[in-house]
Amino acid sequence: MNSKPVTIGLCGLGTVGSGTYKVLRDNAKVIAARAQAPLEVIHVGARRDNPACDLGDTRVSRDVLAVARDPEVAILVELIGGTTVAKELVETAIRHGKHVVTANKALIAEFGNEIFALADEHGVEVRFEAAVAGGIPIIKALREGLAGNRIEWLAGIINGTGNFILTEMRDKGREFADVLAEAQALGYAEADPTFDVEGIDAAHKLVILASIAFGIPLQFKSVYTEGITRLTTQDVVYARELGYMIKHLGIAKQNGEGVELRVHPTLIPDNLLLADVDGVKNAILVEGNAVGPTLYYGAGAGGAPTASAVVADLVDLARDLGVGQACRVPPLGFSRDNLRDLPIVPMERVVTPWYLRMEVEDKPGVLSKVASIFSDQGISIEALIQKAPAEGQTRVQLIVITNKAMQGSVDQAVTAIEALDTIAGKLTRIRVEALDG
Amino acid sequence: MNSKPVTIGLCGLGTVGSGTYKVLRDNAKVIAARAQAPLEVIHVGARRDNPACDLGDTRVSRDVLAVARDPEVAILVELIGGTTVAKELVETAIRHGKHVVTANKALIAEFGNEIFALADEHGVEVRFEAAVAGGIPIIKALREGLAGNRIEWLAGIINGTGNFILTEMRDKGREFADVLAEAQALGYAEADPTFDVEGIDAAHKLVILASIAFGIPLQFKSVYTEGITRLTTQDVVYARELGYMIKHLGIAKQNGEGVELRVHPTLIPDNLLLADVDGVKNAILVEGNAVGPTLYYGAGAGGAPTASAVVADLVDLARDLGVGQACRVPPLGFSRDNLRDLPIVPMERVVTPWYLRMEVEDKPGVLSKVASIFSDQGISIEALIQKAPAEGQTRVQLIVITNKAMQGSVDQAVTAIEALDTIAGKLTRIRVEALDG
Repeated sequence: MNSKPVTIGLCGLGTVGSGTYKVLRDNAKVIAARAQAPLEVIHVGARRDNPACDLGDTRVSRDVLAVARDPEVAILVELIGGTTVAKELVETAIRHGKHVVTANKALIAEFGNEIFALADEHGVEVRFEAAVAGGIPIIKALREGLAGNRIEWLAGIINGTGNFILTEMRDKGREFADVLAEAQALGYAEADPTFDVEGIDAAHKLVILASIAFGIPLQFKSVYTEGITRLTTQDVVYARELGYMIKHLGIAKQNGEGVELRVHPTLIPDNLLLADVDGVKNAILVEGNAVGPTLYYGAGAGGAPTASAVVADLVDLARDLGVGQACRVPPLGFSRDNLRDLPIVPMERVVTPWYLRMEVEDKPGVLSKVASIFSDQGISIEALIQKAPAEGQTRVQLIVITNKAMQGSVDQAVTAIEALDTIAGKLTRIRVEALDG
Repeated sequence: MNSKPVTIGLCGLGTVGSGTYKVLRDNAKVIAARAQAPLEVIHVGARRDNPACDLGDTRVSRDVLAVARDPEVAILVELIGGTTVAKELVETAIRHGKHVVTANKALIAEFGNEIFALADEHGVEVRFEAAVAGGIPIIKALREGLAGNRIEWLAGIINGTGNFILTEMRDKGREFADVLAEAQALGYAEADPTFDVEGIDAAHKLVILASIAFGIPLQFKSVYTEGITRLTTQDVVYARELGYMIKHLGIAKQNGEGVELRVHPTLIPDNLLLADVDGVKNAILVEGNAVGPTLYYGAGAGGAPTASAVVADLVDLARDLGVGQACRVPPLGFSRDNLRDLPIVPMERVVTPWYLRMEVEDKPGVLSKVASIFSDQGISIEALIQKAPAEGQTRVQLIVITNKAMQGSVDQAVTAIEALDTIAGKLTRIRVEALDG
């Protein structure tokens, strides 16, 4: 191998930035052997030093835009996060004819369409394997490994913080707020946990996966997003009794009506491999019409795992540059003129089974009234548990798993049930997915 | 998209051949959108028709070599199997300047080095995603998705027939021979099941994975191979009591001494995701030094799943041809001059924990003698079960899990234990792997 080095400008020296610098240094030999050229970071952009990352005599600029303008840099790696400076940085790099690798899910999910158009215009590539599920090469799997399939649906545990919280609630019977506080102390959750626990982070990732799976433009605003903040340990326990695990899933489905894009707590059968994915790990289950179900599992966050994905993109680019050709695979796997504008299915038309929990008066006739409301809406019941009343209580918990029903019908049934004077308060409702093809 | 069709010659019309033809036809639209060109089968080579596969007016030759020589064919797909005609076919195609896609694990494992050299010489590509683990894009993951990692080890359930048999033995308490007969009746196992149950099929696949993971030449003859024919239901049950599942694994490890390449029954902790992979499914667990553990799961065989991998290779090639460049990634991910000739670690130097089962006389002093033999060899004991003797029996089953020990030491301990007059017959011995990094 006598190839010239591939020159890299690395912006951002946080967990992922310093992780990437270290992986490129520590694995330099095997990376160069695979890329057929050494990958050399020649310019780092960071507002401040990271004492945990020894940059040697690598050139450092405090102004990250200086890296994007550096004529010696062939590939700009954006690891600063956010959508303001990062966007300007990426656009500047593209305008200066540089290829871009980023781990920034928000940037791609919210501004990917325009960034890809700009990259097209300038004949450069934008890669973002690290933006979804950390080190798991799921974007490559969807865009290339499963390219022979019409993807029917995918369902993923794509937020490690949320999965850690749900695992703790299940295993230790702890309540949400309690576990969240611990996750923050451990550094798994941000001081402002909204992005994680409200599903916004998962929605960013889901929209990227769905666009590649189905060949549709990125449309972050179309994702239905429901967090895990209202889940109770009680529901986690009842779900297990019924043979289900509660996971916070990002789900994308393609059917006759269009595309469903939704992030929400979901009961899934406990015999699925996906149900066994615990703690901060990520996993994505993909159903292709030829291959059937495949699953991809690994670390969804962290410096070195995310760096693994960043470097995979760099090696891919180096291999392109080695044969003097970039842009052999479009960012979403389909060229822009091959993207389809499929309608997004409104949530009231989404069909799933449901888990419904209600507190009812423990007297004759209540169950029959509830059952007749379901029946009026054409909803059939798959399983039902009625708990014995607690000592001195007159109310009991009634838990119902319905068969598949359109959300609109369930909405009406729930409204009718809540209006009964034998029902206390609101129903708890969680979607169920069999994920069986 | 106005690109010219990519012309394909398809040889073999068995399960995978006809599956590939169907996937290319049924998914033509999405495949063309991803490949940026239609993929067209223009010439089929098959000794006989497959009534289940309607070829329309596609040209058919009974002599498969006619397809390899067809000047209109750009990519030859070899799906006839075996290593005689298939080898001649592939070599003829390469000499005629055609790229090759094959699902033939035996051909690649045994003759890959020379086939790749020939392809190099002629400037064409040889792709073989379908040769390992059916539809799971594991070759792409290792060669590209994890390219930033030094791969430490990988362990895979890469023979569906064997895994089906072990799952049935565990779940239903059935014996090996009984389940094998059923697997043959169901079509999961061949009439001659040797390749599956003796681990030869897994060894073919393992050697391919290891070469890509570590950047070493293919060396099928170096694989240690032990089948599942001698496993008993008793051992499956005892393993579970001790918190383990028995799986038939292909394992490749890189350490200071060289590379371990081995296929054998293995006890793995039952809390691993890999332990939950049941029936005919495949899964590969890969440990990279940056990403940590990642797992890839799906259908390891069957017409449509294997076709999914064949078509992924075709799309990859079409994307290369679309930018007028082939050979951007070498077949093993490393160019031939970057492959290393690492030594293969001899089995007596391989270090693992062991499961050992022996039948001992139920009298005082026996356990202490056994323990002192282990101690003499520097082998410590992690867990031990002694079963109560069956009604009217004077012998009991003693099951030991050792800590990590070199096989040579275990060999000596076993010989010494078998020489004791209080031990009946031979010890049953199965390797254990924690697979925890």
